[in-house]
Amino acid sequence: MPTVQVDLRRELFAEKGTAISQAIHEGLIEGLDMQSDDLFQVFRPHDEGEIVFSPTFGGADRRDLVWMRITMVHMFPPDAKQRMYAALVKHLEAAGLRHEDLLVSVVEVGFDDWYAGGPVGE
Amino acid sequence: MPTVQVDLRRELFAEKGTAISQAIHEGLIEGLDMQSDDLFQVFRPHDEGEIVFSPTFGGADRRDLVWMRITMVHMFPPDAKQRMYAALVKHLEAAGLRHEDLLVSVVEVGFDDWYAGGPVGE
Amino acid sequence: MPTVQVDLRRELFAEKGTAISQAIHEGLIEGLDMQSDDLFQVFRPHDEGEIVFSPTFGGADRRDLVWMRITMVHMFPPDAKQRMYAALVKHLEAAGLRHEDLLVSVVEVGFDDWYAGGPVGE
Repeated sequence: MPTVQVDLRRELFAEKGTAISQAIHEGLIEGLDMQSDDLFQVFRPHDEGEIVFSPTFGGADRRDLVWMRITMVHMFPPDAKQRMYAALVKHLEAAGLRHEDLLVSVVEVGFDDWYAGGPVGE
Repeated sequence: MPTVQVDLRRELFAEKGTAISQAIHEGLIEGLDMQSDDLFQVFRPHDEGEIVFSPTFGGADRRDLVWMRITMVHMFPPDAKQRMYAALVKHLEAAGLRHEDLLVSVVEVGFDDWYAGGPVGE
Repeated sequence: MPTVQVDLRRELFAEKGTAISQAIHEGLIEGLDMQSDDLFQVFRPHDEGEIVFSPTFGGADRRDLVWMRITMVHMFPPDAKQRMYAALVKHLEAAGLRHEDLLVSVVEVGFDDWYAGGPVGE
């Protein structure tokens, strides 16, 4: 049940929000073997000045920043994460984004760190 | 010192924001034995298309999504978290929300991962 | 590669956003020996009622809340974090904020939990 929070420019969201959403979803399905109905994303469009980034850090040629935070259970080994990054990049490039403009950060949590709408006991 | 970030529809926040805030607070007090003056919440109202979710994942009948992220110290065993989910659901249902529409995700951190306004040494 | 998310009042961001951004950046450089081109911040300005906090929790005299969430690799010992909090407070006070109004929360992740725009293998 990976969940994704995306901070990005308001104009980019207006122009490509649906394609970006779909690309992230395809990237997680391909990269993590995530189930196709496991879809939880929140987009936070930003006005000028709200996203601040280095255009050069890490040797990149960064012109924009699309910032994805993925919260997921700590069950994926490092190579699965690398596969996920590669799949996200592939699908987001297909949607017209530059890989240099992507920032992905993963936060791992436990299996008991979720409640997703099911029945609860007391 | 649990802190809560809530992403939800703008209309829902306008209509029930105060009740939701209070329900979450009551849920954490009841579920985690949190002190009643330990209150740190941020609400992020969203426009159409910014919250993307599966209506069926996990067998739920989901019609909306109220997404709570709770950041708290890793001191609560799994059954305390379950009690917290149950208390959140109880109070949010009393505020008129459907439990199927709730998503709670916990991020655990350490005791030294907080600064909350006190004096600092140098 | 610490990243920072900041939730704050819209008026405060309009008035002091640039100074706050710079102060946080200086605080992380000084407190964590972070490289000066390692800059990734997102600001989320909030309208009335979206930030809910206790004015007194922890014995503080809190009149506002500037809420920073720092995501960083788990490589900093507790005293480095304390040095970071002190440096953040120092620079933010110089920008005109009260330390009582600051909330910092750290989320630690692994070295393999980042993708920052580089080439990806498949």
